[in-house]
Amino acid sequence: MGNMSEHSTGSSTRKLLVLNGPNLNLLGTREPQIYGSDTLEDAETLAARAAEAHGLAVECLQSNHEGVLIDAIHAARGTAAGIVINPGGYTHTSVALRDALSGVDLPVVEVHISNIHRREEFRHHSYISGIAVAVIAGAGISGYKFAVDLLASRL
Amino acid sequence: MGNMSEHSTGSSTRKLLVLNGPNLNLLGTREPQIYGSDTLEDAETLAARAAEAHGLAVECLQSNHEGVLIDAIHAARGTAAGIVINPGGYTHTSVALRDALSGVDLPVVEVHISNIHRREEFRHHSYISGIAVAVIAGAGISGYKFAVDLLASRL
Amino acid sequence: MGNMSEHSTGSSTRKLLVLNGPNLNLLGTREPQIYGSDTLEDAETLAARAAEAHGLAVECLQSNHEGVLIDAIHAARGTAAGIVINPGGYTHTSVALRDALSGVDLPVVEVHISNIHRREEFRHHSYISGIAVAVIAGAGISGYKFAVDLLASRL
Amino acid sequence: MGNMSEHSTGSSTRKLLVLNGPNLNLLGTREPQIYGSDTLEDAETLAARAAEAHGLAVECLQSNHEGVLIDAIHAARGTAAGIVINPGGYTHTSVALRDALSGVDLPVVEVHISNIHRREEFRHHSYISGIAVAVIAGAGISGYKFAVDLLASRL
Amino acid sequence: MGNMSEHSTGSSTRKLLVLNGPNLNLLGTREPQIYGSDTLEDAETLAARAAEAHGLAVECLQSNHEGVLIDAIHAARGTAAGIVINPGGYTHTSVALRDALSGVDLPVVEVHISNIHRREEFRHHSYISGIAVAVIAGAGISGYKFAVDLLASRL
Amino acid sequence: MGNMSEHSTGSSTRKLLVLNGPNLNLLGTREPQIYGSDTLEDAETLAARAAEAHGLAVECLQSNHEGVLIDAIHAARGTAAGIVINPGGYTHTSVALRDALSGVDLPVVEVHISNIHRREEFRHHSYISGIAVAVIAGAGISGYKFAVDLLASRL
Amino acid sequence: MGNMSEHSTGSSTRKLLVLNGPNLNLLGTREPQIYGSDTLEDAETLAARAAEAHGLAVECLQSNHEGVLIDAIHAARGTAAGIVINPGGYTHTSVALRDALSGVDLPVVEVHISNIHRREEFRHHSYISGIAVAVIAGAGISGYKFAVDLLASRL
Amino acid sequence: MGNMSEHSTGSSTRKLLVLNGPNLNLLGTREPQIYGSDTLEDAETLAARAAEAHGLAVECLQSNHEGVLIDAIHAARGTAAGIVINPGGYTHTSVALRDALSGVDLPVVEVHISNIHRREEFRHHSYISGIAVAVIAGAGISGYKFAVDLLASRL
Amino acid sequence: MGNMSEHSTGSSTRKLLVLNGPNLNLLGTREPQIYGSDTLEDAETLAARAAEAHGLAVECLQSNHEGVLIDAIHAARGTAAGIVINPGGYTHTSVALRDALSGVDLPVVEVHISNIHRREEFRHHSYISGIAVAVIAGAGISGYKFAVDLLASRL
Amino acid sequence: MGNMSEHSTGSSTRKLLVLNGPNLNLLGTREPQIYGSDTLEDAETLAARAAEAHGLAVECLQSNHEGVLIDAIHAARGTAAGIVINPGGYTHTSVALRDALSGVDLPVVEVHISNIHRREEFRHHSYISGIAVAVIAGAGISGYKFAVDLLASRL
Amino acid sequence: MGNMSEHSTGSSTRKLLVLNGPNLNLLGTREPQIYGSDTLEDAETLAARAAEAHGLAVECLQSNHEGVLIDAIHAARGTAAGIVINPGGYTHTSVALRDALSGVDLPVVEVHISNIHRREEFRHHSYISGIAVAVIAGAGISGYKFAVDLLASRL
Amino acid sequence: MGNMSEHSTGSSTRKLLVLNGPNLNLLGTREPQIYGSDTLEDAETLAARAAEAHGLAVECLQSNHEGVLIDAIHAARGTAAGIVINPGGYTHTSVALRDALSGVDLPVVEVHISNIHRREEFRHHSYISGIAVAVIAGAGISGYKFAVDLLASRL
Repeated sequence: MGNMSEHSTGSSTRKLLVLNGPNLNLLGTREPQIYGSDTLEDAETLAARAAEAHGLAVECLQSNHEGVLIDAIHAARGTAAGIVINPGGYTHTSVALRDALSGVDLPVVEVHISNIHRREEFRHHSYISGIAVAVIAGAGISGYKFAVDLLASRL
Repeated sequence: MGNMSEHSTGSSTRKLLVLNGPNLNLLGTREPQIYGSDTLEDAETLAARAAEAHGLAVECLQSNHEGVLIDAIHAARGTAAGIVINPGGYTHTSVALRDALSGVDLPVVEVHISNIHRREEFRHHSYISGIAVAVIAGAGISGYKFAVDLLASRL
Repeated sequence: MGNMSEHSTGSSTRKLLVLNGPNLNLLGTREPQIYGSDTLEDAETLAARAAEAHGLAVECLQSNHEGVLIDAIHAARGTAAGIVINPGGYTHTSVALRDALSGVDLPVVEVHISNIHRREEFRHHSYISGIAVAVIAGAGISGYKFAVDLLASRL
Repeated sequence: MGNMSEHSTGSSTRKLLVLNGPNLNLLGTREPQIYGSDTLEDAETLAARAAEAHGLAVECLQSNHEGVLIDAIHAARGTAAGIVINPGGYTHTSVALRDALSGVDLPVVEVHISNIHRREEFRHHSYISGIAVAVIAGAGISGYKFAVDLLASRL
Repeated sequence: MGNMSEHSTGSSTRKLLVLNGPNLNLLGTREPQIYGSDTLEDAETLAARAAEAHGLAVECLQSNHEGVLIDAIHAARGTAAGIVINPGGYTHTSVALRDALSGVDLPVVEVHISNIHRREEFRHHSYISGIAVAVIAGAGISGYKFAVDLLASRL
Repeated sequence: MGNMSEHSTGSSTRKLLVLNGPNLNLLGTREPQIYGSDTLEDAETLAARAAEAHGLAVECLQSNHEGVLIDAIHAARGTAAGIVINPGGYTHTSVALRDALSGVDLPVVEVHISNIHRREEFRHHSYISGIAVAVIAGAGISGYKFAVDLLASRL
Repeated sequence: MGNMSEHSTGSSTRKLLVLNGPNLNLLGTREPQIYGSDTLEDAETLAARAAEAHGLAVECLQSNHEGVLIDAIHAARGTAAGIVINPGGYTHTSVALRDALSGVDLPVVEVHISNIHRREEFRHHSYISGIAVAVIAGAGISGYKFAVDLLASRL
Repeated sequence: MGNMSEHSTGSSTRKLLVLNGPNLNLLGTREPQIYGSDTLEDAETLAARAAEAHGLAVECLQSNHEGVLIDAIHAARGTAAGIVINPGGYTHTSVALRDALSGVDLPVVEVHISNIHRREEFRHHSYISGIAVAVIAGAGISGYKFAVDLLASRL
Repeated sequence: MGNMSEHSTGSSTRKLLVLNGPNLNLLGTREPQIYGSDTLEDAETLAARAAEAHGLAVECLQSNHEGVLIDAIHAARGTAAGIVINPGGYTHTSVALRDALSGVDLPVVEVHISNIHRREEFRHHSYISGIAVAVIAGAGISGYKFAVDLLASRL
Repeated sequence: MGNMSEHSTGSSTRKLLVLNGPNLNLLGTREPQIYGSDTLEDAETLAARAAEAHGLAVECLQSNHEGVLIDAIHAARGTAAGIVINPGGYTHTSVALRDALSGVDLPVVEVHISNIHRREEFRHHSYISGIAVAVIAGAGISGYKFAVDLLASRL
Repeated sequence: MGNMSEHSTGSSTRKLLVLNGPNLNLLGTREPQIYGSDTLEDAETLAARAAEAHGLAVECLQSNHEGVLIDAIHAARGTAAGIVINPGGYTHTSVALRDALSGVDLPVVEVHISNIHRREEFRHHSYISGIAVAVIAGAGISGYKFAVDLLASRL
Repeated sequence: MGNMSEHSTGSSTRKLLVLNGPNLNLLGTREPQIYGSDTLEDAETLAARAAEAHGLAVECLQSNHEGVLIDAIHAARGTAAGIVINPGGYTHTSVALRDALSGVDLPVVEVHISNIHRREEFRHHSYISGIAVAVIAGAGISGYKFAVDLLASRL
């Protein structure tokens, strides 16, 4: 129900959780005119390298299941120092995801590959932005690097 | 994908299903200024005791997965006499949960620990209230006891 | 302009005010398919008994006059420890009632006999819920008992 | 708090209640360009004569107090066969008045002197219309006569 | 494209136009639980008799065609002293009909058999009410009589 | 004002009315990127053949005139067993058409050549859907066949 | 059902269709404070003269019937090089008219005698503007001349 | 039902009515972080002194009853030269109060202790402002003085 | 977490995926007044037979889990030639499901057993319709057959 | 802060002000698929020639600064007989510009190069139209000529 | 770009900034039926005299340029003790002005000559009110005096 | 009217424009709880260094004047390779700024110091996002660095 990979190099309080929501496993193959040709693995590798440069590790998880994402967020309490999340389609519909993120009280950076503000009206509202530290949209997979850099600078 | 516990003491038609949705497993530790310091176990115990006083049993389930909650509701047909549900964040977004509850045709009482009407605008609407017998919000974990009392009085 | 009855057994700080708004004097005879056959007296008796069990007294007032209800709320300052209110039709239209309740700074529990969320759209919004401790709707006259229990548990 | 007059000629089940809400006591003197120069007394006399022609009596009450109007509606149960009401400004704001009218289960005809649909936007919605048998707006005080005729034809 | 009948007894300036819009030819047979069992002919006869009592004639037209109704309204200039109209479904959608009525500068009374405010939300707004002298809804076919009476009293 | 053709093979209670509204006479030539290259005649033939397979006849009418469509619907009472209608642009604006269809109390299937939900916002709401048995959009002219099959299965 | 006049001087591809919708036959006599004192004939003559100056002819039609206007638009395919339309009250309500205009794929200029943006709110939205080349409002009958000039400059 | 005090020093046409609506009797004790520590008596005294400086008297009334306020406004016709009103919670909900004020045709200045635009959304709209000469919000009890000064300057 | 069955008779590019969302496992037993008495198995069998007639196979999956449905859609890339989906309650709330369907770039037909346009307002909007080829609602389980026929005609 | 040019040939009361707002200096080079290839100079020349034909002069100003445009409008009092304005992006956002135009009490014609009604939703509303004599949109730079012609015809 | 005048009599912390926005330079000449015949100079003199009475000076600036107003607000930090602002048309559209005012952290009183609540709907919302201490509308130029008095009483 | 500084090191096509809108000159001193203690100079230096690392120069401009910002954007055509903009309060209100940015056809990255989605509702919509490549909000002054990095990676 989820694809997980870890690029762990340090203690738990020096780890960031990198979460990707529904359909992001298709990255690089799905609607490339919107999302580009970089794959999810490219994005996760970029995040891992950025973390490494700050002496941090990342734990990466992608899932199409809202519940799996929530479980992973809960598990981050005490094991991670911050969360980078691209909530995919759940961005616009999931109060439960928002509650999970605000419940574990870790700094969150929300990332979107495409600029959601140039797309359909219903993609303009995010339940996550209201509890995130920062939001980065339209920067392609570089958004993951920026998010990691930002969280690292706050530790 | 779900944490289940049973406090069963009687025949199936004398059992109530007590369902808790996403993030309620964090109860007592998550945002205590909103949700108080009682834990999920406290809430379930309170419900069990209230049921016992009426000669009823409760079956308790908490899950962060919308699908698991729906499966559990389906399973309640023929095995439970009523449902107490705190749908958490799914309260405001899940038509599927509403359909499951109205599909099994059992009396439902909706419970919220906090008074959702004093919180963000998007928490003021519930898809569940429209098919519930009663709604109790802001009574803390006592809400579970009241819900059980109410269902018991209708049996 | 109002029907008042007192079930007083103790000191003023141990008294709860039980207020019923417009048309609740018709309870039991008005639209029983919505409101059931219990009368206002039944509801007040239930509240009184619940209070007694906690060593508390209740003072009950029903009025169809918004101003009478406000006056009674003002009078509760220093004489009551909490307020149970079923604001009837004023629930959806009275900012003045809301202001009176928040002005006296006592804990308030809002009660509705029927589940207002299953009725007309205009009954879904309450001016009172935003300043109440808790809201109980659809529990019939048991809602008054639950409200008293809840206030008692907070004293 | 209210001006009452009775033109009673028969048994109670042959009486109609004619209610006028806030500011209608000013009729004939207030904003005549909107409301004309007929007075409240003219309107009530017209209604009384219409009733008489059908062998009915009318009981007339005008009040600026919402609660007084509600009390009068309650009192009509068992004493009147129908209600003609011009709710004045409460038309657009009073759920309590609506509940009182639907609570006593008598046929109601809603009358407005002016055509409220040609006036401010906030006068276009009526809480009363949804539970009235008929609505007559803009017919001046003739509206009262038409309302009585209509109720009489239904007895 | 239209069913016309005349009950003419006097000079043109002493004639009223009685217009009925789409589907009103089905009156008495269509959805009698909403519209009753009186027929269109009954309604027109009632209007004719009311007019006669005031020394007036009526010209009656029913059409399902918006354009036919507009043409008839235009033709009323100089031939009629007022218009009684039940615009049927065009009530809620026809700016053209409204413009025709305000263009000929004759007093208009809008009639609806049923109380449109008790029906679907989209029936609550009328393009005609804003330019009518009066609006009568829910009085059954008596509404036509009241409308004629009202116009007669203004001549 | 309308183009009518009949493919009649049986008694009147075994006939279906196939109605096409404004601009559908242009089918095949108008905006083919939206509506495809099939013509209205193709659609009507397809419907006729589907009906024949069920031992039914069809009567086909296309008109750009709202009134003509309403007249035809009225005429279907007693002569047809069901109605297939593509209301074209009147879908979104005609309460009168809706009333005509609900007035004759025959089963109605609403058909749209294109998927109206993928087009302009104002095409997403239909006054007809609320009184139709079924709605088929985006199936091209096959929609007419499906509609006939569905009505046939209900006879 | 429509008033047609032709000022034809050349081949069909050099002809413009000048369409006027409901109530425009009243021009000059109807509400002159809004529409001025020029008549429909004045407007059509102005358009004809403007066309002549460009070596073009005009065909003029006014109708109060939506269907007649749609039929005329369809007939313009292959016989006219462009359409000048003042849709009157159908501007704000007719998707069918919009579809007809976009269906025949001719350049359309929308004209309004008065500045519709200074009038009632419901006149501010036009279904036609979205498929017109240009919109001219408030220029009185000069708007017809401007519209013809503009279409001529595009041929 | 109301607390009245008069600071009368001159003829009736030289008197101002100072009206305070629901909950303003609590001024100084109720939510001082919003309303400050000045009392209603302070406000009335300030208004009286301001009036005196202009050779005017004030008549002061506070009531929690909408009907009492309306009655007082009616009584001001012929006895007062202007009205200063702080309608409290009725500001946002009372069409009846608005009608009373516009019915007596006296200049009205609306005063609010706090700046209602910095508070809840539902306090941003006032039914009174639309018929007031001026609106003063957020000036504390000085608002009453300003209002009196303004009315005095207009006499 | 899902009930899967396959009726496979050919190569993968000749297979259709038939997906059913939450609560559709209850079909035939749940609220039969809305959904009829046909079961999910009946629907799947109907789809399979329709496919067979076109030389196609179907793979059927029902799940109450949003994530399971998304995973199944992803898996259809390269293994199926089209998708028939009844998204149940997720129709109205799931952007993730929409993204999954548009991400795999297969033709989609959306099916609803009941006519969702006759039900609650919140069922009138579908996130799926905007990316579907066609939408069929209210045709009962015949909708599945029509959907298969339509997809087959496009291969 | 502004580009001004004058084509003056007569007395001040015979001069028209031609104002162009933000980004119109880019005309001909900016997004030519929307705005065409004519330049601002072309537009101003066209306006000047049209004025000359009527014995009038024009004064032209383009500025990206809202304040500069307002200053220029003020300066037109007593020096110009009318204003042609293309407010560019300020059309949709500037109440100040509207107030300036209505403040100087000169006839105003609003011009847009493109048909703003075919573009983004936020371009459909203009603060200027409500105080303009006429509005011309989509006529390219011919709109300036039409505007000058129209103003000239009114002098 | 701005008209500035100073009535300075004391140290910088004893100075108030009196800002007037777009079109207020026209005061007394522009639309006197709305704004009266007092000029801007009258208003500024009134403010200066009021300040003097409190031992304060005023610095007055009027500009039609949003940026000039913002620059002036910034310059007030450290040089003024409070700001009186009539933002004119920017009231309803300028977030930047609001940000400037809240950025310098000085008490602000918002003044409007006319009662904006009696005018167009779009004048009912102010971006400034949410950060102002008080709002005075409809008091004519006396509003400036009241504003100065209020700020003085707070120093 | 603007504060400009240049950190130029290369040819014009290798330069980025860094624009800051109204009130950003206050950065570091204004509401530090929202915007932090970094100054505008810090932000510009950060951007300059990031550019330098990519072999690029930056030109920086801050202005409170909308027109100055638009002029600067126009000037960037042919002199800059991309634009980083923090539009401040104009984000939410300026169509003119949006048009300027889309008119010069350069890649734009929108930056906000704070996470605007956690602030007032009116800050949630940006006119700029719809034409930007990417949007970065809440990253503090690091957002400028990320924006430069992103633009550099696209050159």
